[in-house]
Amino acid sequence: MKNIKFDSVKITGGFWQQRQNINKDTTIYSVYDRFDDTGRVKALACDWKEGDAPQDRPHIFWDSDIAKWIESAAYIIKMNPSEKLESMIDAMVDHLAANQWEDGYINTYYTTIEPENRFKNRDHHELYCAGHLMEAAVAYYEASGKRKLLDCMEKYAELIEKIFADDNSAGFVTPGHEEIELALVKMYECTGNEKYKKLAEFFVDKRGYNLKNESSNPVAPHYSQSHLPVREQTTAEGHAVRAVYLYCAMADLARLNGDESLKKACDILFDNIINKRMYITGGIGSTANCEAFTQDYDLPNITAYTESCAAIGLALFARRLQLLSESSVYADIIEKVMYNGFLSSITLDGKAFFYENPLEIPAKHTKLKDTRYPITQRLEVFDCSCCPPNITRFIATIADAMYTQNEEKNVVYVQQFINSEAELTVNGEKATIVQTTNYPYSGEIKIDYNGPATTLAVRIPAWCDSYKGETKNGYAVFEADGKTTLEFNFAMRPIFVEANESVNDDLGRCALTCGPVVLCLEGVDNGEYLKGIKVSSDCDPEFGFNETLGLPTVKMKATRRVHSDKLYAPYTKKREEFTAEFIPYFAFANRGESEMIVWVHVD
Amino acid sequence: MKNIKFDSVKITGGFWQQRQNINKDTTIYSVYDRFDDTGRVKALACDWKEGDAPQDRPHIFWDSDIAKWIESAAYIIKMNPSEKLESMIDAMVDHLAANQWEDGYINTYYTTIEPENRFKNRDHHELYCAGHLMEAAVAYYEASGKRKLLDCMEKYAELIEKIFADDNSAGFVTPGHEEIELALVKMYECTGNEKYKKLAEFFVDKRGYNLKNESSNPVAPHYSQSHLPVREQTTAEGHAVRAVYLYCAMADLARLNGDESLKKACDILFDNIINKRMYITGGIGSTANCEAFTQDYDLPNITAYTESCAAIGLALFARRLQLLSESSVYADIIEKVMYNGFLSSITLDGKAFFYENPLEIPAKHTKLKDTRYPITQRLEVFDCSCCPPNITRFIATIADAMYTQNEEKNVVYVQQFINSEAELTVNGEKATIVQTTNYPYSGEIKIDYNGPATTLAVRIPAWCDSYKGETKNGYAVFEADGKTTLEFNFAMRPIFVEANESVNDDLGRCALTCGPVVLCLEGVDNGEYLKGIKVSSDCDPEFGFNETLGLPTVKMKATRRVHSDKLYAPYTKKREEFTAEFIPYFAFANRGESEMIVWVHVD
Repeated sequence: MKNIKFDSVKITGGFWQQRQNINKDTTIYSVYDRFDDTGRVKALACDWKEGDAPQDRPHIFWDSDIAKWIESAAYIIKMNPSEKLESMIDAMVDHLAANQWEDGYINTYYTTIEPENRFKNRDHHELYCAGHLMEAAVAYYEASGKRKLLDCMEKYAELIEKIFADDNSAGFVTPGHEEIELALVKMYECTGNEKYKKLAEFFVDKRGYNLKNESSNPVAPHYSQSHLPVREQTTAEGHAVRAVYLYCAMADLARLNGDESLKKACDILFDNIINKRMYITGGIGSTANCEAFTQDYDLPNITAYTESCAAIGLALFARRLQLLSESSVYADIIEKVMYNGFLSSITLDGKAFFYENPLEIPAKHTKLKDTRYPITQRLEVFDCSCCPPNITRFIATIADAMYTQNEEKNVVYVQQFINSEAELTVNGEKATIVQTTNYPYSGEIKIDYNGPATTLAVRIPAWCDSYKGETKNGYAVFEADGKTTLEFNFAMRPIFVEANESVNDDLGRCALTCGPVVLCLEGVDNGEYLKGIKVSSDCDPEFGFNETLGLPTVKMKATRRVHSDKLYAPYTKKREEFTAEFIPYFAFANRGESEMIVWVHVD
Repeated sequence: MKNIKFDSVKITGGFWQQRQNINKDTTIYSVYDRFDDTGRVKALACDWKEGDAPQDRPHIFWDSDIAKWIESAAYIIKMNPSEKLESMIDAMVDHLAANQWEDGYINTYYTTIEPENRFKNRDHHELYCAGHLMEAAVAYYEASGKRKLLDCMEKYAELIEKIFADDNSAGFVTPGHEEIELALVKMYECTGNEKYKKLAEFFVDKRGYNLKNESSNPVAPHYSQSHLPVREQTTAEGHAVRAVYLYCAMADLARLNGDESLKKACDILFDNIINKRMYITGGIGSTANCEAFTQDYDLPNITAYTESCAAIGLALFARRLQLLSESSVYADIIEKVMYNGFLSSITLDGKAFFYENPLEIPAKHTKLKDTRYPITQRLEVFDCSCCPPNITRFIATIADAMYTQNEEKNVVYVQQFINSEAELTVNGEKATIVQTTNYPYSGEIKIDYNGPATTLAVRIPAWCDSYKGETKNGYAVFEADGKTTLEFNFAMRPIFVEANESVNDDLGRCALTCGPVVLCLEGVDNGEYLKGIKVSSDCDPEFGFNETLGLPTVKMKATRRVHSDKLYAPYTKKREEFTAEFIPYFAFANRGESEMIVWVHVD
């Protein structure tokens, strides 16, 4: 199965066009400005020295921030050429190239601060930074045709191969933070150079074999997925972003090599995540402690960590698995992430970001001393600012994996619903698919195919209970030839969803969903003490519209418990009635500090 | 106001006689045997040396365990003379006396292990051990008339006065673990020697003034109530046992000295505990982290620490405050502790103990990785075994503060309801009060007074909503002269109690109470998945009887949520009906490992 890349799909209106416009007009510059303010841009000159402003001292992961920014800007340029953005990228690339070592090494931190210590510390993100620079190099080459950064990274890749695979002379064998593995696959797919794929295999295959510096810390092996050889891993463990980046490379190599044992490991890990360790928003990694997965069904709402990068990584993993199996579950998860756990990570105006995405914000007075709470308002930049440029690159490539194609069986899969025009090749001939829809606010979708005879397999969303036709593996299947029009109307009604009984925090509560969108209550609309609110699953919800947010809402009758002021008192059942207004979860925290709750008590 | 001591009250049947019989026939010997097994008894010889069994190496708090055992045995002897127990005590006292230093110092650990380091480390429990030995000395002297231990402790008290109050030559000023303060008050009340009261005042008054070694650790000041001078403390902070032991001494000194500023501090601290920081069982100290109070309304059920000693300490504090104010709230809290958070700490057979008393035991499969859970079955001894001898002494003196007396106003307060015969002095003449009751299983109480004219103030329990007569400060007031009989029937019906809206964990849940007894559900009676059970507050409960436990129960119709096996699924409202059986909370965990829940979901 192959992927139709984002650059073959022009988004022509609706929800994602608005988001991409904000991304290219506002977010990409705002992130650059914050990276400039915080010293990340000027650090590329590698001229910081003791005595200079301490806040400008390069940090071990700054190259990865810059790299993801370059990658994002490249994707934007690909669809909307911009001299301004291109010159900003070029200036960065010039610095990177100028400071590349004779032997190919590139790293702003080590070059500036401690060149004598390169490749000694497994947890110092050098190969992680290298990986992101490789992704940036490929993206920029494909967007602009300029090879400068790609040449640098090819040279750097040679050095990495020599030091790690040939000489085994570094202080460690596999990196503490995965990323280089999937990046080397991209390098291979861009250049056709098999060495990069081999090197990716090297890093994937060596992990978990108790190699040097891999498991010195008793916590560390799980933290960096080094507890077992990757083919023997059956549960998603450790730092969630590292985990899913590793799984992405595993899925890539499974596809490229037809490696069944890797594919099986990927299937088991994906299954563990989506059936045991994922929030209803598609967020993953439930604890701030090591930013990690914890255990099956441990999904606390208030302290949910659910890093934005982890949600993105889960979608990237699902996009890759989608090419290996004929099931709609991957696209369902991608959709869940797109509209919820990912989308919550950015303000509606595109300027500020959540690193963590909690599912509940309690009233201030109920915050507890020993508990670490996530931030409740998005920020423009973080000390560890991996998420903002990850968010821009994900929005820029939102149409990636919208279509996939099995050329052998001549099937085109329609995975996501976005107002757009796509160009693809069917049986060697050009074909187009035009989607007209107001998704995710409406389930009406018109799909106009024009091209040679093929089978169109349209995903019926997992949340949809109104589609009456036949489906296979989650897809409705149609034969198309020439101009063919398909029309769908997936009924988008509010549905209460319950969690498994083992999810302690969601007991007696439901989440309200409407289509792919998870809804929530905010204090600003519903008054204080959201956790005392109860709704009835038999109620008659109505659609509303929130003017301030400019978004549709769902309103329904609800009651709020009225307690005694005492610590303990005879139960009175006293409740006050009011009309609750649910907004899309992704839009919470856009109107100042407020309580918020996804899982609402329900009758 | 004065207290009628436990030795003036003979318990003649019913609930507490059964408990005291087990205490004197089983528990006191069982605790001794375990202390013998674990080296605590032979450590008194002070002859352990390097090379001997390492598990027998004396520990800094072992003297306090032995002391509380002696104190318990003394109370038992006082009511039920026993040559066997007396000879066991005498053997221990002989060791303690034989190893007393020339200058009066007594401490098994320091004498044996590091005599050169005595009184250097504030957190090494020397004055805590000294205090418990003083309590033991007073108790044994009053039970047997033997002065040997009391003489030793008087000599030791002189040394402590010299080192701490006169010379200020120790490594610290106030001890890290309070206890000596209340013990010195007991020494004063037993001997009449004012020096002991002065020394108690010294330790109480010096605390919190940032003295040497008092606040080296940023956490420590709160941990040992050293964050503020005691009169300025307004919230119960730090290690819960240390806190309430300190408050006991503060209340004692407030009474003895008519010290209004100390009394006011006690009132504020007591109010903070019972209205903001106490479980419905009377348990206090909600986190295992430092065994401490946390903050207002932070009362998690599964991880509730609620050390048995802390519940006892709260009752001891309330007994003292009861002598300072004419309100029934203190006796209400004592009752709450007696029948719940204290009583849960011992098995029905009297042999094993809880150090921690959780309010919920989740199913095994829902236990979470990063969460510390308390033990779920009682043990016969712990490494830190402070609770078992504290429990025996509390049972032996359960009738303490059952009656209090305001001699000036000629009022006798009936604070607790226990089948018993009490002797007291009213207006200089002998009087008796006989109580006939099956409390706490029945609210019928007959009180036969015989004596000179007095006012009888009978506490109407806070939980009782059926008493129709007039009350003053929580008491029904009657004039008695000669033979006078009062009869009460406090309706004991199951009542659902709710918690304040700020108690996160209890939201949407109620605790079922019946009279003073808090009830709970156990898995052994109610099947698995207790947290999915919902009862209706409008249901028709019936009384039952559990044969295995030999205890009354409450039965009612209930439903249990039936979930989908999926992580998330549309809400179905599916529930199965069954009859739930509630047992007294104090009796949980007497039939093997089982889920348990106090706060049950309620309609």
